[in-house]
Amino acid sequence: MREVGIGIAGFGTVGGGVLSILQRHAHDIQARLGARIVVKRVVLRDAGKSRPVEVPAALVSTRLEDLLEDPAVEVVVELIGGVDQAFDLVAGALARKKHVVTANKALLAARGDEIFRLARQNGVDVYYEAAVCGGVPIIRTLRESLASDRINSLMGIVNGTTNFILTAMAERGEAIGPVLAEAQRLGYAEADPTLDVSGGDAAQKLCVLAQLAFGSRLKPEEVLTEGIMGLSPDDFVWGREFGYTLKLLAVARRCGAPGTPGAEQIEARVHPAFIPQASLLAGVRGAMNAVVLRSEALGASMLYGQGAGAMPTGSAVVSDIIDLTRNILSGSPGRVPLPPEEALVRLRGHAEIRCAYYLHFSVKDEPGVLARIAATLAARSISVAAVQQREQPDAAAPVPLVFVTHEAREADVRAAIAEIDRHPSTLEPTRLIRIETV
Amino acid sequence: MREVGIGIAGFGTVGGGVLSILQRHAHDIQARLGARIVVKRVVLRDAGKSRPVEVPAALVSTRLEDLLEDPAVEVVVELIGGVDQAFDLVAGALARKKHVVTANKALLAARGDEIFRLARQNGVDVYYEAAVCGGVPIIRTLRESLASDRINSLMGIVNGTTNFILTAMAERGEAIGPVLAEAQRLGYAEADPTLDVSGGDAAQKLCVLAQLAFGSRLKPEEVLTEGIMGLSPDDFVWGREFGYTLKLLAVARRCGAPGTPGAEQIEARVHPAFIPQASLLAGVRGAMNAVVLRSEALGASMLYGQGAGAMPTGSAVVSDIIDLTRNILSGSPGRVPLPPEEALVRLRGHAEIRCAYYLHFSVKDEPGVLARIAATLAARSISVAAVQQREQPDAAAPVPLVFVTHEAREADVRAAIAEIDRHPSTLEPTRLIRIETV
Repeated sequence: MREVGIGIAGFGTVGGGVLSILQRHAHDIQARLGARIVVKRVVLRDAGKSRPVEVPAALVSTRLEDLLEDPAVEVVVELIGGVDQAFDLVAGALARKKHVVTANKALLAARGDEIFRLARQNGVDVYYEAAVCGGVPIIRTLRESLASDRINSLMGIVNGTTNFILTAMAERGEAIGPVLAEAQRLGYAEADPTLDVSGGDAAQKLCVLAQLAFGSRLKPEEVLTEGIMGLSPDDFVWGREFGYTLKLLAVARRCGAPGTPGAEQIEARVHPAFIPQASLLAGVRGAMNAVVLRSEALGASMLYGQGAGAMPTGSAVVSDIIDLTRNILSGSPGRVPLPPEEALVRLRGHAEIRCAYYLHFSVKDEPGVLARIAATLAARSISVAAVQQREQPDAAAPVPLVFVTHEAREADVRAAIAEIDRHPSTLEPTRLIRIETV
Repeated sequence: MREVGIGIAGFGTVGGGVLSILQRHAHDIQARLGARIVVKRVVLRDAGKSRPVEVPAALVSTRLEDLLEDPAVEVVVELIGGVDQAFDLVAGALARKKHVVTANKALLAARGDEIFRLARQNGVDVYYEAAVCGGVPIIRTLRESLASDRINSLMGIVNGTTNFILTAMAERGEAIGPVLAEAQRLGYAEADPTLDVSGGDAAQKLCVLAQLAFGSRLKPEEVLTEGIMGLSPDDFVWGREFGYTLKLLAVARRCGAPGTPGAEQIEARVHPAFIPQASLLAGVRGAMNAVVLRSEALGASMLYGQGAGAMPTGSAVVSDIIDLTRNILSGSPGRVPLPPEEALVRLRGHAEIRCAYYLHFSVKDEPGVLARIAATLAARSISVAAVQQREQPDAAAPVPLVFVTHEAREADVRAAIAEIDRHPSTLEPTRLIRIETV
């Protein structure tokens, strides 16, 4: 029986999941493929460390070069993370006409272009389902729909850590500090949670998704990115009054110049957003992930599942390995579409973003303030959908005054806020939260 | 450039969608495949009828045999519906080593075994994404997960017509008669809605899904099937009191004897069910479809999208055609797993089903009734989770008395109801609705 040899680089949680799924399902995989998937080599940093899944000593190495130099390794599974070393490994594998499965979103967001070009040049495949939302088959779904549909927008909850935190804040009314500490205790947040709570992780994922869905060429630092650390329990209370839930959303969508090749633009942004309590995304709780797609043929669709964890992510890696093995066996690598070689869309400047806004002003309790704010908004063509003023027993304290706008231009909203915040009757900086009616 | 010839049998709504997607995306499809997909022949019943999508006259025929006899047709797309004629067409195509794409759930539910066997014998592929929940890629997802994961349950809203009706009843408090009439007016329900409202359509889909997910061999008539016509606005009101929404669910899940080959059983049932208002499935409104999978590696996941319509279903057919074409081009038909040849699980008898129940008794307002009902349930090991009695101003009218049970055995619950309904103080037959905590 034909064997397909794989080499695994990096053996943390996901690597353990991959090996245990391959072992447990060896019989089924063999029956379905008519071939065996054999782990030829596992490269790990510290060969002496004990692990939950045992690796036969004969397979273990600490040199990445061993994977590249071993002709029995036809597929390199990159699970070491980071950008530079991972790039060298992946590029080395592709140059030697080895196929690659990677779970590394940072690598793809930073250097995906080069990797896909190398894969094309060498006639081999790169699979990366596990790089974005482990247990949600979003990469496969985008790939499948590329040839026969046109994606107009994607919007998702793609970071489990922040969704865990926001769900707890919404349901218990607590401040972010204690909830983050709890998430760290429970293993939902890292000791250094910066990448997650800043929105940076979601921005990396958005770049990978948008490249495939729209043919964009974005770097994470180009994505409008706002994190969750500035959110307060009060924001959730106010949101509820208007029928909203607060989620960290990653959004990419086509806007403007449709059909004009090269002129078409997309918005790309990651930020806390109010969404209707009755929307499906509002029901995505805890550390779960979900992505809503809107496309011409399918209309709205949603994929939901676990975003992280040894088994969901490991399972995504194994699905990729199996798919790749089928291509190898049938002599048809290159079967699976990669993102297009040329950028098909450009990024719309963040100032030109259009959406609805929640604006929370803190003002002096004096006549004419409401009228002045309303006039400032109107002067910049910002149309108001709802206003609410909360009674304030303490006359000296700032009065909260909340406006919900219809769709408006980000630059106009920013300019109006700047003007309002300069006025002496505004006591605290205005809070802005975007609204998406998913 | 290599051409792959397809023939389309049946040219209603879906056929029109398929042709228009193939035409509109011809360039993209060609670029991605490195080959052209060419419609060689379209067989329709009435060649004279005008259609929203025009078919070149040279391609049109009214004889199904033309598809079979034309050597240029490598892929037969079966969209004629029904069982017998469709089976002859599909079997004829497979026998001539033509690949098949079908959107026909009735055919697969009734004669899937024979079709899959013929495909295996002839080394060709059968694709059927469009047969179940058009815009939801559930077949592909199940196929992908088969080799490396183990599905433990699937539960879904797989019939858009009934979900449209139940959503309207829930949101407007109306009776089923006028809502069904409205659904018919709007095109969400057929002139004869029996197949949908009886649960029969959902049972067919469940058979197709369970065969792939569990390797079962079920006929639709073996599935426990209850429709929605008996539901009243009052059921929705009571459900809300307990925090539930009412949906028509299709459920298949493993139960008992795990790991013992041949001894393992599944439950398979379609019926109205109360589900928690906060659950994701409760948020699936109108004619949308969704399927929740629970599997060993991925845990819970959900796919959501449009279940019907020219474009969603047409898009699923085109995805299948593209996938198939890739197999043809790479000389790797048979690449995609079909359901296993032998039945891997047996159907658990419906009497042995276990779930939680909502039981609505209508009783005389007299002492001891509550105690007697509680005792009857207890005697059959049916444990009570909640009870509610509504005040009744008219002493002569039946008093509604609602019990929500913990998980219990269907046969025990049926026996208890029979006993309670025989008692003179029970004034109307007891209403039973199963509860699923999805």
